Amino acid sequence: MAAPPPLDLSHHLSYATKNKKPSSVKGFYKYFQIPGIANFAGGLPNASYFPYDTLEAKVALPQRLDTKENSSVRVTVPKESKTKDVQRKIDLTTALQYGTAAGYPPLNTFLRSFARDHLHPNVPYAGGPEVILTCGSTDGFSKVVEAFTNIWNPDRDWIQQREGVLCEEFAYMNAIQTVQPRGLNVASVAMDGQGMLASGEGGLQHVLENWDFRLGRRPHLMYTVPTGQNPTGGTLSIERRKEIYALCQKYDVIIVEDEPYWNLQFPSAYQNTVHHRGSCSEPNLYTQNYNAEGKSSGYAYLDSLVPSYLSIDIEGRVVRLDTFSKTIAPGSRLGWVTAQPAIIERLTRITEVTSQQPSGFVQALVAQLIFGKDDDSAKSSKQIASGWHMDGWVRWLEGLRARYEARMHDMCTILEQNKYLFHGSTGDEVDAWEVVDRVQMYDFVWPVGGMFTWIDVHFDTHPLRSQYPPEKLSKALWIHLTQRPHLCLVSPGGMFAPTPRSAEKAHRYIRVAFAPMESDEVAPFTQRLVEGFRSFWQRKNLDGLSGEEAQGFDLQPEVNLLGNGC
Amino acid sequence: MAAPPPLDLSHHLSYATKNKKPSSVKGFYKYFQIPGIANFAGGLPNASYFPYDTLEAKVALPQRLDTKENSSVRVTVPKESKTKDVQRKIDLTTALQYGTAAGYPPLNTFLRSFARDHLHPNVPYAGGPEVILTCGSTDGFSKVVEAFTNIWNPDRDWIQQREGVLCEEFAYMNAIQTVQPRGLNVASVAMDGQGMLASGEGGLQHVLENWDFRLGRRPHLMYTVPTGQNPTGGTLSIERRKEIYALCQKYDVIIVEDEPYWNLQFPSAYQNTVHHRGSCSEPNLYTQNYNAEGKSSGYAYLDSLVPSYLSIDIEGRVVRLDTFSKTIAPGSRLGWVTAQPAIIERLTRITEVTSQQPSGFVQALVAQLIFGKDDDSAKSSKQIASGWHMDGWVRWLEGLRARYEARMHDMCTILEQNKYLFHGSTGDEVDAWEVVDRVQMYDFVWPVGGMFTWIDVHFDTHPLRSQYPPEKLSKALWIHLTQRPHLCLVSPGGMFAPTPRSAEKAHRYIRVAFAPMESDEVAPFTQRLVEGFRSFWQRKNLDGLSGEEAQGFDLQPEVNLLGNGC
Repeated sequence: MAAPPPLDLSHHLSYATKNKKPSSVKGFYKYFQIPGIANFAGGLPNASYFPYDTLEAKVALPQRLDTKENSSVRVTVPKESKTKDVQRKIDLTTALQYGTAAGYPPLNTFLRSFARDHLHPNVPYAGGPEVILTCGSTDGFSKVVEAFTNIWNPDRDWIQQREGVLCEEFAYMNAIQTVQPRGLNVASVAMDGQGMLASGEGGLQHVLENWDFRLGRRPHLMYTVPTGQNPTGGTLSIERRKEIYALCQKYDVIIVEDEPYWNLQFPSAYQNTVHHRGSCSEPNLYTQNYNAEGKSSGYAYLDSLVPSYLSIDIEGRVVRLDTFSKTIAPGSRLGWVTAQPAIIERLTRITEVTSQQPSGFVQALVAQLIFGKDDDSAKSSKQIASGWHMDGWVRWLEGLRARYEARMHDMCTILEQNKYLFHGSTGDEVDAWEVVDRVQMYDFVWPVGGMFTWIDVHFDTHPLRSQYPPEKLSKALWIHLTQRPHLCLVSPGGMFAPTPRSAEKAHRYIRVAFAPMESDEVAPFTQRLVEGFRSFWQRKNLDGLSGEEAQGFDLQPEVNLLGNGC
Repeated sequence: MAAPPPLDLSHHLSYATKNKKPSSVKGFYKYFQIPGIANFAGGLPNASYFPYDTLEAKVALPQRLDTKENSSVRVTVPKESKTKDVQRKIDLTTALQYGTAAGYPPLNTFLRSFARDHLHPNVPYAGGPEVILTCGSTDGFSKVVEAFTNIWNPDRDWIQQREGVLCEEFAYMNAIQTVQPRGLNVASVAMDGQGMLASGEGGLQHVLENWDFRLGRRPHLMYTVPTGQNPTGGTLSIERRKEIYALCQKYDVIIVEDEPYWNLQFPSAYQNTVHHRGSCSEPNLYTQNYNAEGKSSGYAYLDSLVPSYLSIDIEGRVVRLDTFSKTIAPGSRLGWVTAQPAIIERLTRITEVTSQQPSGFVQALVAQLIFGKDDDSAKSSKQIASGWHMDGWVRWLEGLRARYEARMHDMCTILEQNKYLFHGSTGDEVDAWEVVDRVQMYDFVWPVGGMFTWIDVHFDTHPLRSQYPPEKLSKALWIHLTQRPHLCLVSPGGMFAPTPRSAEKAHRYIRVAFAPMESDEVAPFTQRLVEGFRSFWQRKNLDGLSGEEAQGFDLQPEVNLLGNGC
């Protein structure tokens, strides 16, 4: 039986997005095709006046990350390619001219194939998804929010008109800050080590079933980072994704799946947990080929990764955000959205009157990284002419995963080995302590993906716990860690609290990133961190750890500096 | 007496824009500065995993356009620059990392100086304007519209809440399409050869004084292209700008000045008009140094150009959009907004949760074009190390102006010489014609700026005028021109009609661009165009010029293909 097409979800479109008219220029195209036509109609500047004659780059070979072979090759985007096929033509005359909102044709073609054939070869609805390029996932999310939510102004609108957005209990705050100024309800869903809970107290079912309509409409949009969640590092099993998807079907919720870390999934987290702790409360997610019953991705690595919500999206209610920020560079400001065609069509209309298209500079240089040269001069160099192509790109992603997984391992091994302060281990200073063998200073879940470890700090074991509330101890710990000799700057949990309910318990957490530092710094820096914990647990007072020194603490995340799921 | 500061215009901010919270991370910065601090807080990926080791380009020397010396030099953005000064540091480790919404520091610094010291050295309010980079002016305008307008939904809101936007009678439709889906009133203002009229029937005063409040609020925002207007090619004198500004003060209107063509001002238009017609109804705008009474721009060329609305903006109600689309390339998707600091601050908040920043690929490559290499390897090449800098950049702009002015001249000379069909000049075929010496087929104003000529077609002189309404003749002319042997594709006036009132007379006009074709094609193509006019005026019927063939005619502009003021 043929799969049914995706549902019509246009009832969720915002007023302004419904109003956007498709461009009717298609009738014009046939005139552009007339041989010898003199084009007085375009408002395009003349390409001979672009001051760039080439764009070039030295780029890594795809094996750099898994072989540590550090050589690079040169790629060149010429002024004008003789290639006729627009899907393969990469030159400045086209890339630096006005383009189409879907993205530069060679890059759009590559990403469409990557999404449909390799990342998500088994999307269940008829015809499969489409893609549109974005200027990164922050841009992608802002367009999705524009598409699917109406601004609510309490001075002007009825409470019954107020829309809502679901998110994880601890979340990437830049996304929340996209939503909040629009006057929407933000409803957080409780989490466990994997991520968002489907059932149980505070889980998705609970939130949706018990929605208090006095706050406004039941949320129709979910923002979620199901893989390597920011800040918790959890990854949802496919079973959990199915439970959540079923609830979203029942309550007609659109799932916006933000997956900047999707290819950074860490199978070793399970084994390491078992190795150190004897067992693991989370399931082992990496024991199967997820595409075994459908089409293969063509790569064992991709087949092994927990698949996207798109893979179970029979109704077409998943909008997935991807980005090159973690796989190429954040400054690329390049990504794409994958969703059912009707949604991509609306996002295209929004793109035409906002960003128009990602910069041709980055589109051409990324396209050329992938395809290599296609002009005549490439013939002199086999390496360049071959490009990365799909095989090289996937190899790069797998190498990147290995590098980040090694960092995660270095950090978490030290965190694991230093969770406890042992009685007597620090000499006479422990007189005031409870007489126990050991005191647990913190706990954590080995991250199954992403760039962060989420540390649950046990302030209730601190010797000063009866003198200071945990919020105060938390603030003091943060300052203490920044001081000599520890010199560690960590992200306080409060920076990831989207709702007052989350904020109440946020003081218990800190987020530590293993991504930004050099790889040989991860272990020594983490060592300094755990020594900072130990010395904090040995303090007899909080002198010098409050007041003005703490002013950096009560912070919302800096959008570009600290947040960045996208 | 010191100039007063700009007005507080926050009452014009949209609900969602008022709600946006400034990032409070500044308290955090001091911790980043602690020597030896281990940064666990950033979510940044590691720069060593960016696959680009360099970005390079062959670029023109600034004198290419005025000397036709076609050599190029190589610029290189290295992986890591040793420069400490972030205003001058241009490398991939910074440019491809997360950045700040204001833009890449070296480029922001350059553009801020370009805007404040050279383009607009005499902004009258205290402190002067600030700048923020955009992903081109379509992006800039969409952010300005988000900042200053609330969406109006007739099913939900009162008519008294409906906001409005003023624009020229014929306008760049992509901008209008940004506004219309939000449910706003679009109110068009009548124009003359210069552009928007301040007074008289349908002029700005008339529209604002006689506003019909049954339609909604009086417009508080104006979208205007005062220089080289798209589609008309008109440029407003400084006197006209002052009249319009005074009305905007009186009625508390924010002026959004879109100036993609500002540096393409054509002094020769006046002389050519006088030469061919004996006189010119428009004033000669190029007889003075506009900065003579204030600070010089430092360049005779910039001093000679009709200054921006910013130069008379004593209250801080001008928001100016600039773009690199016409000066570097449209595909750069790079531009900037100049306005009073409080407006730039709100646009920064919007940028943080939308585009974040323009792509680092284009920011680094444009910065390097301007500054040249600043790393050690540059020492081997004086040419590269010198960069374009401000002098080179302004020289490039002036060269660009000269090239486009030459194209305008080539086109308009032929249009001028062929406005009339002379009685008897085509032999026996003219028997049915009125017995006059000559028939004027069209008229036009020599464009004082931009990329287009706006042709006012005199259908009332056509021999078939009594058989067909002018709308029908207009459609037929458009098809006729696309046919052999003329093969000319022009933009019908209806593509630039923002309101029904404009649409009523739009059939009279066509827009012809001299920008996109090769420079040696302008004359022969225009020759084909005027021959197309002549043969159309000799037609005795409209056979083959109606019905399905005309389906391309009733078009809204394609955003990226045909519109593009930005």
